Amino acid sequence: MTNSTKNSAVLLIHCPDKSGIVVAITEFIYKNGGNILYLDQHVDSERGVFFMRVEWELDNFAIEREKIAEYFEILVGARYQMTSQLHFADDKPRMALFVSKMSHCFYDLLARYECGELNVEIPLIISNHPDLQSAAERLGIEYHGISVNKDNKQTQETKQKALLAEHKIDFIVLARYMQVLSDDFVKDYPQRIINIHHSFLPAFAGARPYHRAHDRGVKVIGGTAHYVTAELDEGPIIEQDVVRVSHRNSVADMIRKGRDLEKTVLARAIDLHLANRVVIYGHKTAVFD
Amino acid sequence: MTNSTKNSAVLLIHCPDKSGIVVAITEFIYKNGGNILYLDQHVDSERGVFFMRVEWELDNFAIEREKIAEYFEILVGARYQMTSQLHFADDKPRMALFVSKMSHCFYDLLARYECGELNVEIPLIISNHPDLQSAAERLGIEYHGISVNKDNKQTQETKQKALLAEHKIDFIVLARYMQVLSDDFVKDYPQRIINIHHSFLPAFAGARPYHRAHDRGVKVIGGTAHYVTAELDEGPIIEQDVVRVSHRNSVADMIRKGRDLEKTVLARAIDLHLANRVVIYGHKTAVFD
Amino acid sequence: MTNSTKNSAVLLIHCPDKSGIVVAITEFIYKNGGNILYLDQHVDSERGVFFMRVEWELDNFAIEREKIAEYFEILVGARYQMTSQLHFADDKPRMALFVSKMSHCFYDLLARYECGELNVEIPLIISNHPDLQSAAERLGIEYHGISVNKDNKQTQETKQKALLAEHKIDFIVLARYMQVLSDDFVKDYPQRIINIHHSFLPAFAGARPYHRAHDRGVKVIGGTAHYVTAELDEGPIIEQDVVRVSHRNSVADMIRKGRDLEKTVLARAIDLHLANRVVIYGHKTAVFD
Amino acid sequence: MTNSTKNSAVLLIHCPDKSGIVVAITEFIYKNGGNILYLDQHVDSERGVFFMRVEWELDNFAIEREKIAEYFEILVGARYQMTSQLHFADDKPRMALFVSKMSHCFYDLLARYECGELNVEIPLIISNHPDLQSAAERLGIEYHGISVNKDNKQTQETKQKALLAEHKIDFIVLARYMQVLSDDFVKDYPQRIINIHHSFLPAFAGARPYHRAHDRGVKVIGGTAHYVTAELDEGPIIEQDVVRVSHRNSVADMIRKGRDLEKTVLARAIDLHLANRVVIYGHKTAVFD
Repeated sequence: MTNSTKNSAVLLIHCPDKSGIVVAITEFIYKNGGNILYLDQHVDSERGVFFMRVEWELDNFAIEREKIAEYFEILVGARYQMTSQLHFADDKPRMALFVSKMSHCFYDLLARYECGELNVEIPLIISNHPDLQSAAERLGIEYHGISVNKDNKQTQETKQKALLAEHKIDFIVLARYMQVLSDDFVKDYPQRIINIHHSFLPAFAGARPYHRAHDRGVKVIGGTAHYVTAELDEGPIIEQDVVRVSHRNSVADMIRKGRDLEKTVLARAIDLHLANRVVIYGHKTAVFD
Repeated sequence: MTNSTKNSAVLLIHCPDKSGIVVAITEFIYKNGGNILYLDQHVDSERGVFFMRVEWELDNFAIEREKIAEYFEILVGARYQMTSQLHFADDKPRMALFVSKMSHCFYDLLARYECGELNVEIPLIISNHPDLQSAAERLGIEYHGISVNKDNKQTQETKQKALLAEHKIDFIVLARYMQVLSDDFVKDYPQRIINIHHSFLPAFAGARPYHRAHDRGVKVIGGTAHYVTAELDEGPIIEQDVVRVSHRNSVADMIRKGRDLEKTVLARAIDLHLANRVVIYGHKTAVFD
Repeated sequence: MTNSTKNSAVLLIHCPDKSGIVVAITEFIYKNGGNILYLDQHVDSERGVFFMRVEWELDNFAIEREKIAEYFEILVGARYQMTSQLHFADDKPRMALFVSKMSHCFYDLLARYECGELNVEIPLIISNHPDLQSAAERLGIEYHGISVNKDNKQTQETKQKALLAEHKIDFIVLARYMQVLSDDFVKDYPQRIINIHHSFLPAFAGARPYHRAHDRGVKVIGGTAHYVTAELDEGPIIEQDVVRVSHRNSVADMIRKGRDLEKTVLARAIDLHLANRVVIYGHKTAVFD
Repeated sequence: MTNSTKNSAVLLIHCPDKSGIVVAITEFIYKNGGNILYLDQHVDSERGVFFMRVEWELDNFAIEREKIAEYFEILVGARYQMTSQLHFADDKPRMALFVSKMSHCFYDLLARYECGELNVEIPLIISNHPDLQSAAERLGIEYHGISVNKDNKQTQETKQKALLAEHKIDFIVLARYMQVLSDDFVKDYPQRIINIHHSFLPAFAGARPYHRAHDRGVKVIGGTAHYVTAELDEGPIIEQDVVRVSHRNSVADMIRKGRDLEKTVLARAIDLHLANRVVIYGHKTAVFD
């Protein structure tokens, strides 16, 4: 999905539903020489909201890259009160990884990064433990051990934010980072922090989901990748999946089975985010895959 | 799994874990001329509980059917403080269906019954609505419309229990029956009432799970078949499954997708129950499938 | 998905890919007062083919129903060499069921029909066995036993075609009908015969797939719903799904597990067909779900 | 499943089915002071074969490790013509990885190895390309580039076998190794070479399965891990899984989706092999999970 070197633009839109929106957008593209590669739209009729993802080739497009967002807003967006984001397929966003001691998502993402599967730059890894430092540095990624506890959270988050700014980070992935970020921190990265929770939310929100799943005797366990908001485990869900378990499975077995699930679900969510396929509206997402 | 006409016995056991249990049980069967067809066991090492399902051919078994339970208890069970159930594969349990207006599970179970898929007798259907009467009666099943509300629940449950007794009902299936049974009723049918809940419990316990799943923006919805206990939606889970949904799916779409899930999950749970593959211990099950 | 009483039109289109198609279609709808409810398109860039499904409200549409297809063809379709189909959401197609002795798909479809799940009329059931006659007639559906063998196939198919014509049948569902239709028959119902094959095609095409799956020791078995073409089991696939099996499962177990799969996969395919969500191009489908 | 440091023995058995086998085995364990941790058995009634996996604690076992296999064979195995394998849970097998240019399975296995997920030693990687050398050497694993073509296969396989012998390799994993091993090579490692094939076999055996799946228009694609035998893609299947695809997915998309599937399926198969949960009989497996 990612790894694109296409010379194309992607527009993600939501706005109040109204007649004529599709024509207005597709005319804007067509009349200016753009060739539509992908168009998908959705109307949430209960909330009266229109959603769209459209991608078009820029080779013969009359408007230069830097001006497209402005022209679109003035000629189309403003008329329909659109909230829109413009991306280019050959952009390579900069991602920071926050990790702790649990290393499976960390190693999996680095393996994907190393074999060129992810269209991303990873210049920075932040952890509250030193354990994974050498693995990070082998790939030439800066690794900062910043130990966080209740008393020093504000100070340490200030350090973290400085590093994020210095490395021009576009979005953050919490790869089983065991700390809760402060509201202030979250507000600085709206819709730009992705977390993996090890349950099929809303079941087993909060701590120790596998232990609670085992105790309840469920027959499936899950994983959920979501954007982080101020409310813990309540942010917009990007991707979920499950795996079957049985009475034979101990908590340790669930943790083991869950590892593969967490890796896959988190990687899919990052991939969807990088491919500009996720539109957030309120506390929900439209995922155009 | 069901539909067996085999001349075999099935023993379901749980007891405190101890060395020598397997030998004691298999010796009891072997020395008396039984041929083991199936044996599966499980040790819950956290709770220190041993579980087993064993099935053996009775053709040359030295102990007659009526005496097996007694002999087993005296020779083996008592020694290990076993809780055990003995079933015969050619038994045909008697099941009562409780239904309401939602008809998909009802029609699905009757279709399975009619084409001989379920090893069960269904002599009785109880509903709080008259809607499905003619469909029931075409198959020669007695249908009783017993309308229940807050004020008459006790009286009506007395009528229901009289019908269950009259028809010698072994277990009850709530096929989207929209009433909550009283604690007294539930206590009269311990581990013998199966319910289908239209969510992957413990998520969305209680009313209107599809509406709440839609509102939360989940990417999978589920169904859960469980034994009914006094705590609503908290009984031992027999079977669960899920189906993917997306932002495109309205609540109505989820209800529609969920129907197939509910039918399949409920039918699988009934099948497992009929095949004597479920051992209940506390609020959890071991399902030997 | 079905059961719609909406006053809306659905257009299914494929044509050589070219710039401007989306604008042309959406302008046609918008300028004539139609409100787009759904639009999804796909470009198969390898074959250079454009696919689209678009649905719009007719309440204020300027062109009357009977004229829409003609106007669209002249004003838009011809210009882009489009192959298009126009449907109305409140149409209720007429379906004939072909069955044999295996009754699970038959009973399942009748149950869905009886509880109003399928937006379809079923006036006719044809079987080469008398077994299911009474079940059909209870629902007031005409049932014709037409026994087919190698020698009488031509004669019997002539009778079948006469019945299909008499009942104005729009499409045929082979619900585990064990006969192969002649090429002539198939040609008379192009893209209008749906079959369920009990394997994940192309694995185990042909006879006795469960036996061969068991013999090969596969860990998943599947079901495939497809349009029937002259090449056996080679028609365009509408829907597939799988279920896990293990060494414990005998052929009989696979058949039993497969029954639920076949029912669900066939019902989903019929539902997609009825909702006008399937575009056929060559030997493949685009399914806009 | 793996990573065990338990002091326990695992016995994998198959033999002609006969009455009394379970008693004989469990008595052997119990009477010598072993405590059974796990027992699962299966009777293939069509082929008349009995299968079992049993694991027991050795802490108080009367027979010393080195003698268990001999004692078991003389006291029990010979009497029932058993084919048996004895393993110890704290054994750490030595695995060689064969790789080529496709790196996703390679990186995934190394990541699992590095974070301690696999109970295995990997002393040796053999490849017909130099690409992955530095990644291997960073983890201190010997990497040998041995380029194979039609003309030099015999010579090069001789080199490979010398390396396998030198490093005392117990089993080989072909992690998308693109060469076909000679029959002679395969015969030297019976039931000890695991391959990942990128389709749900038997569909799309042989080359370019994703291209052929795309061309056929299937709605699910799969992956299969199996033991390698002289017949290409015909060896006993250990594990399979699938993922849904749609008309939107290009061949490149399928390859991308398939990568995650291949990684997970291969890792699960290796895990099952390492945990001594796979019994091979003929061209099929019994997997006790």
